[in-house]
Amino acid sequence: MGQTAYLFLADGFEMIEALTVVDLLRRADIPARTVSIMGKKEVTSSHSVTVMADILYDEADFDAASMLILPGGSQGTINLEAYAPLMARLDEWNEAGKRIAAICAAPSIFAHRGYLKGKDACSYPSFEEHLAAGGANVNQNEVTVSGHMIMARGMGCSIPFGLAIVTCLKDRETAERIKKGIVYEQRS
Amino acid sequence: MGQTAYLFLADGFEMIEALTVVDLLRRADIPARTVSIMGKKEVTSSHSVTVMADILYDEADFDAASMLILPGGSQGTINLEAYAPLMARLDEWNEAGKRIAAICAAPSIFAHRGYLKGKDACSYPSFEEHLAAGGANVNQNEVTVSGHMIMARGMGCSIPFGLAIVTCLKDRETAERIKKGIVYEQRS
Repeated sequence: MGQTAYLFLADGFEMIEALTVVDLLRRADIPARTVSIMGKKEVTSSHSVTVMADILYDEADFDAASMLILPGGSQGTINLEAYAPLMARLDEWNEAGKRIAAICAAPSIFAHRGYLKGKDACSYPSFEEHLAAGGANVNQNEVTVSGHMIMARGMGCSIPFGLAIVTCLKDRETAERIKKGIVYEQRS
Repeated sequence: MGQTAYLFLADGFEMIEALTVVDLLRRADIPARTVSIMGKKEVTSSHSVTVMADILYDEADFDAASMLILPGGSQGTINLEAYAPLMARLDEWNEAGKRIAAICAAPSIFAHRGYLKGKDACSYPSFEEHLAAGGANVNQNEVTVSGHMIMARGMGCSIPFGLAIVTCLKDRETAERIKKGIVYEQRS
């Protein structure tokens, strides 16, 4: 398995869901790269902020990847799901039991592609029916770690989502240190 | 008072502290503009993500502004504090009792400029000595609303900070609706 977490950006992505993960991974000294699927590095979020991705999809080296991460945002999720090369790669990763993560609307992609049959899962409330239709055991936890998959419910769960990824790619001690460093330790 | 919240970006800004506020204000339909003090729209965060600001400092119309907001990040805060036009504007706003807000390291700017004498205040833990030296009554709440000033402790307090700004510029009902919409309502 590679060392670098890849987080995919498409126009309409929820910027806090995406960038909180990048922020927390970099605090943990875990290599993380944002990957544009738009054919250009400028990607515009669902709240009209343009961010420069680190690399284009064609520049991604999947042999170097430790995890594939999908942020939400409704149009962003639609755009990610419509991008066949990423979907093929995701299928390959899921079949191999390699780590994948999604937040908010994006776990619906996992459901649509059949990854969630009989699995614990969570997503943004209005997407729970997609998860159920895909055979998931849907819960309302902020974050769900389900084997090689990590899912979270919404933008307000971005920090727990990022910390769960840090725990998975590094360790709980590092996640706890970061939680304290960002003054999140007052929360449960 | 104007309608638009201005949030100032300098290289080294903490992107989650900055963009969570933009995200939440736009969810609340409160006009918000990111303003670069770097003389160019590309501004790079403390975690190496380049974001395009909406406008340059010289394009800001302070008559249209409802609040001036300073994100943290240690180098970002140093850069904001070194930018004399912004500091002069902030002094003018503070003297007039117009709304200002700062998170993480940035409340230290309020302390250094004498705004916090005898006021309740909070900041990132390692900056609390600056607040105390400025005569503040320092507390460890996630967010402190102190008259026309709003302060918060760190990146992990970005959502409560943003929601406090929404409450101030709009109302509590809107903040509660957004809190639910981002799936943050499970938290205290």
